[in-house]
Amino acid sequence: DRQGSTAMLASTLLLKWPKTKTAGWHVGWLICGPQIHVLALSHMLNTPTKLYDQGHFQGKRMEFSSSCQNIMECGLDNIRSLKVESGTWVGYEHSSFCGQQFILEKGNYPCWEAWSGSHAYHVERLTSFRPLCCDHKESKIAVCEKENFTGRQWEISDDYPSLPAMGWPSSEIGSMKVQSGAWVCYQYPGYRGHQYILECDRHGGNYKHYRDWGSHAQTFQVQSLRRVKWTEHTKPTAHRMEWKGHFKLRTEGQHRVTNH
Amino acid sequence: DRQGSTAMLASTLLLKWPKTKTAGWHVGWLICGPQIHVLALSHMLNTPTKLYDQGHFQGKRMEFSSSCQNIMECGLDNIRSLKVESGTWVGYEHSSFCGQQFILEKGNYPCWEAWSGSHAYHVERLTSFRPLCCDHKESKIAVCEKENFTGRQWEISDDYPSLPAMGWPSSEIGSMKVQSGAWVCYQYPGYRGHQYILECDRHGGNYKHYRDWGSHAQTFQVQSLRRVKWTEHTKPTAHRMEWKGHFKLRTEGQHRVTNH
Repeated sequence: DRQGSTAMLASTLLLKWPKTKTAGWHVGWLICGPQIHVLALSHMLNTPTKLYDQGHFQGKRMEFSSSCQNIMECGLDNIRSLKVESGTWVGYEHSSFCGQQFILEKGNYPCWEAWSGSHAYHVERLTSFRPLCCDHKESKIAVCEKENFTGRQWEISDDYPSLPAMGWPSSEIGSMKVQSGAWVCYQYPGYRGHQYILECDRHGGNYKHYRDWGSHAQTFQVQSLRRVKWTEHTKPTAHRMEWKGHFKLRTEGQHRVTNH
Repeated sequence: DRQGSTAMLASTLLLKWPKTKTAGWHVGWLICGPQIHVLALSHMLNTPTKLYDQGHFQGKRMEFSSSCQNIMECGLDNIRSLKVESGTWVGYEHSSFCGQQFILEKGNYPCWEAWSGSHAYHVERLTSFRPLCCDHKESKIAVCEKENFTGRQWEISDDYPSLPAMGWPSSEIGSMKVQSGAWVCYQYPGYRGHQYILECDRHGGNYKHYRDWGSHAQTFQVQSLRRVKWTEHTKPTAHRMEWKGHFKLRTEGQHRVTNH
């Protein structure tokens, strides 16, 4: 019966809560006597990120509001331009969030060069991406001279376009501990070269060797780093959908073309 | 006679003061009766920037401590790697400070990709460069929606990795007024794409059209911008040279191989 299935759905959702939180789902409940109503399903929309299979916002277009493990499963061969309309995203060279990492903040990216960091290793590919959930007010990271959090240590809570210019003794960092927020570290000064996106809620914030920074990291070289900023305007906008007896739970990797 | 030539040299230097200031020369004077002594010639050394004609700090090496209009006049065909050891510099694609601009902060740049911004327009060339003199404590810039300082206006004194994420209504800026300090503006979010280096003491700080931003600017597109930071560690170290009766005034464009 309907009440039974609603109750089952509710418990399923409750069980799924920790997983669905990543995708940004928020569910409101109202229990009245024997009835359980799912009142509202509110999606913390990182809505929408628009992808195009041609440069300069041409060709096949798709709109995403949650992460995608492999764009090929969505009918796109490659992404050649994109628009981030809200939230902050991370793009990856390969499927399943592997390879080079690209920070994607609100704005227009008409070509691959607009988001790519390293051109020494020139692969024009963006195959998976996910929203960056970082609702922090402050950002803190400890950088250590040697791996495993040894050697000299600095606590950083500001952007550093050149670590050596601020007195850091080398062009390398051995390990990093993200205490709060999300950070982007770069191989070269001035936010250039390979990017490594480090978050307090991944790896428990511990990045004890360059191998933890990302599957593309091959060196301890880090010469600049900056916070991922979180403001009123970067907040994904909450979007409410009334639940009318049935709905399809959008899972990670699914895409949609929005109607509005 | 010696006093006469000293006086002449002194007046020449005084006349040259505004020009030599760019290169960072500071001259101390002592007038005792009829004698004028040039007491000390102190060079605010942006010392040294090491250039290499091969990648990864290989090949022919040269060390610079003042600006250079054309590296070819110094016997280098191209620069494929460089180390900035103090100060902040600006590199240019073409001679006489023209073409693409590259901000060069303290650190190691093993390859062209380490400093270059736009790869859509792929020219691996760095032909002239100059130290960036910005001994400011604070940085302020006003960005305007339209050219000639019209339309909506924002006063900015912080780094903005994404202007649209902070509420700026478009992916373009019409004009900019640098009130203090030096700024780097970028075509795309996340400090990517073409770079425009804007200073309060160039153009009177007024950049009323993209044509003023640099000879390579072809669009109003600016989606991120940041301050050039000035700290104890980025300050060029003062270097004193006693004047012993004669000296060779190092002019812009001259180079040297240091002995230490």
